[in-house]
Parts: sequence; C-alpha cells; structure tokens
Amino acid sequence: MARIICAGLGPGDPDLISVKSDRAVRGGETIAYFRKAGKRGQARQIVEGMLREGAVELAMEYPVTTEIPFNSPEYNDLLAHFYDDWAERLATMPGEVVVLCEGDPFFYGSFMHLYTRLLGRVEMDVIPGITGMTGCWNATGVPITWGDDVMSVVMATLPEEDLVHHIGQADALVIMKTGRNLPKVRRALETAGRLDQAWLVERGTMPKQRVMKLADLHDSDTPYFAIVLVHGHGRRPEIAE
Amino acid sequence: MARIICAGLGPGDPDLISVKSDRAVRGGETIAYFRKAGKRGQARQIVEGMLREGAVELAMEYPVTTEIPFNSPEYNDLLAHFYDDWAERLATMPGEVVVLCEGDPFFYGSFMHLYTRLLGRVEMDVIPGITGMTGCWNATGVPITWGDDVMSVVMATLPEEDLVHHIGQADALVIMKTGRNLPKVRRALETAGRLDQAWLVERGTMPKQRVMKLADLHDSDTPYFAIVLVHGHGRRPEIAE
Repeated sequence: MARIICAGLGPGDPDLISVKSDRAVRGGETIAYFRKAGKRGQARQIVEGMLREGAVELAMEYPVTTEIPFNSPEYNDLLAHFYDDWAERLATMPGEVVVLCEGDPFFYGSFMHLYTRLLGRVEMDVIPGITGMTGCWNATGVPITWGDDVMSVVMATLPEEDLVHHIGQADALVIMKTGRNLPKVRRALETAGRLDQAWLVERGTMPKQRVMKLADLHDSDTPYFAIVLVHGHGRRPEIAE
Repeated sequence: MARIICAGLGPGDPDLISVKSDRAVRGGETIAYFRKAGKRGQARQIVEGMLREGAVELAMEYPVTTEIPFNSPEYNDLLAHFYDDWAERLATMPGEVVVLCEGDPFFYGSFMHLYTRLLGRVEMDVIPGITGMTGCWNATGVPITWGDDVMSVVMATLPEEDLVHHIGQADALVIMKTGRNLPKVRRALETAGRLDQAWLVERGTMPKQRVMKLADLHDSDTPYFAIVLVHGHGRRPEIAE
C-alpha cells in the first residue's frame, strides 16, 4: 500500500519549516506538488535546494482553460476530475510520496482535496505547518490578538456586503485570497470604518516581502500572495495612570 | 545592548518546532520562560532535553494570590508590574536571551507584554510558531476550512450571549481558553444549534492527546490545554451526480 506524507511548509521562509517536515522533504524519494501550468509553483520554490539527489518530482498542474468561467459547474467538474486522477495516481504508486503544501495543509489547502479522496485507501501522515497568515502578522511586527479579542479569517472572494458584515463583527481580521479582489476589500474596510487600521503584507517571510498600510497602496498595484490584516487591541494589563 | 530572541515553539510536539526556533533553543545560553508558580511550565516542557549544557534558565513566574479576584484592577496592576519588572531585567541582561513561547508568540501570547515594553529599547527577533489551534485541528484528522469558509477564533471567557452570537456568524470555529468555561461553551454551542458538530482536543500534538466529540464529554471532566473546534464545510469541487 502506498504511503503519503503531506509536508506543511509554512509561510515561505524555508527556515520556518518544522523539524519534522524538513526531515520528510530532505529524505523524500518522490516529491509531489501542485502548481499552475507554466509556473514553478510556490511550494516547490520553498524547498529549492533541499531535495535529495535523484528525487522524482511529480508536478500536479491545475487544469486551465480560457474558455470556461472559473466558478462554473464545468470548471468545477474539471477540477474534481483533476483531483480524482491525481488521487488515483498517488494511491497506486509503489512507495512513499511526499506531497508539499505551503502553509498548513488543513487550512484552505489544496491537499485536502486529495486527502478526502484517499482517506481509508492509503496510509497518510499530515504534518502541520505555520499558516501563511501567521507569517504575515509576524512580518508586521505587531501582535495580532490580545486578551478576549475575536479574530475572523475571511476570503476576499465573498460578496462585498458579506465582507462588510464580517469586518464589523471581529476585533482582529485576516483577509485572504485578495488579488483582484483588493479594491472590493478596500471599499468594504472603508464602509466598516476600519481602512485606516488595515495592513497589507505581500510575500510574507519571503524574498521581496512588502509590508504597508493598505490605505497607502496605489490603485493600480495588484500585489501577489498578499494578505490584509487588522490587528486586535483587546484587554491587556497596563498600569492605570 | 541586550538582544532578545522569542522562539515560537508550536503546539507542543518538539518535532513541530521550526528549524529556526530549534536552532535558537539549542544554541541559547540564557533561556527565559513564563510559568505558573510551582509548575514546570508548558514552554519549558516542550524543549525538555534540547537545552545546551550550562544554559542559564530564567523562570518568569506569574504573580499569584488567592486574595484578589483574577479580573480586578488590583490583579491587573500586579500583572502589569510583573511584566514591567521582567522587561527591565531582560533589557539589562548583558548578552542574548532566548524567550520560549508555546504556539505563535504574536497570537494571544504572554511574550507580547514584554515585546510592547521593550520595543525600541533592545534588539528583538520574534520567530513565528505553529499555533496551538493548528496542532489541534490537525489532531482531529479533518480539514478545518474550505473554499470561502469564514473562520472565527473566540475566547471562552466571553459572556455566553457573545459566544452564541459569534458561533452563529462563522462557518468554522476555534474556541480557546476553555477550562472552567467549558459548560458555558457547551450551552452556547447548543443554543446556536452546533453542539453536534463540535470537537474537543485536549493536549493537541502532545503526549496523552485526547480527541473527542464535545457532546460525549462527561460533565465532571475539565480537560487541560483544551480547544473546541467546529470544522467548516465550504465550497469544494465534487463531480455532480
């Protein structure tokens, strides 16, 4: 029976990989990872220089098409087939496969689509990783949550009114999947009266990291791997004046 | 000038410490950590067997008293003085100090109270860690968030009606600081109609880890280091039947 190890790689800096994942990656004879067709792949990039000599690489390239809209049933079917096919291929491999996963594998990770398909069929070991958002709030140099703060993680792909609603409910905020949704995120933060508290972190913990107040971002600028953060300011012990 | 490295240690399994924190801990000549008076301390426990010979240990023991209520202004002052004193002591140390911190230092961590007091006074390097909640959701073997899921992190110390409110707003939930608040958390989940989806993870990734449905927990049982989780079930590509 095949054995699959999913190695959570953390936010991007290879020094932030766990001791356990580091060992799995360096020892792996077969290494699989997702990537967009024609790209190097973020997970593969993180482990550059770490793979053993002769390691076999399996690039699992997302299906792309310019003819089908991203959220259509057809595209959904295409993706489902893609995960079905790779689950089948990995399940029938003779030995151990190390699947790379940026961040933490169980937190909005692509690996979860293989995991649910392979559960009970093969032996799996999932190694947690530092989430991308954790790397990003550390990059701001400001603690994200204090005392009784409520923190919410929301996807920028949500409708604008939903973003406004959730921004109004939480003390600390993490907004992911920003990309082309950044103007919408900005409007939602402004409507909720919190734009002045929002930070943008691009490529957190990676080379060319950029940390700035979201309000200072130029309209034409569309950052890559960017997360928007609002820090909480909850209860903390200070001496009363 | 003193230099302070805060080493995020992750959820508890020493194998889940980052390569960078592992190096800092093993190389540290002076190691500081918070603990309750009379206890070993969770952070110190994680690094057992890792410290170099002759390392100097500074146990920063929280002030305790049975005479002052935990949330009173007096207790707040006591804690503020405690952090002030330790900030002063660390700032005037001759060399480098490694401060241990379970989980991630900037996510509800005690180190943040030293950090804000020392910012600009000494050189500081904060190394992110895998949060305790990340270790716990991995321990359940079920992915925590999919697609557009909203995830909220709430403290069990909040009033019951606030818990009910936040439980109703999010797809995925993490409830921390449970302890004696567990009966309240249970009632809030029941009121919000989500008790049957809730899991309890005690000592996630550590020896004697326990994972169970919260509804199956006996009333008299008060687990240590326990986090309550509700998994999200958001959008994911499946082939339509």
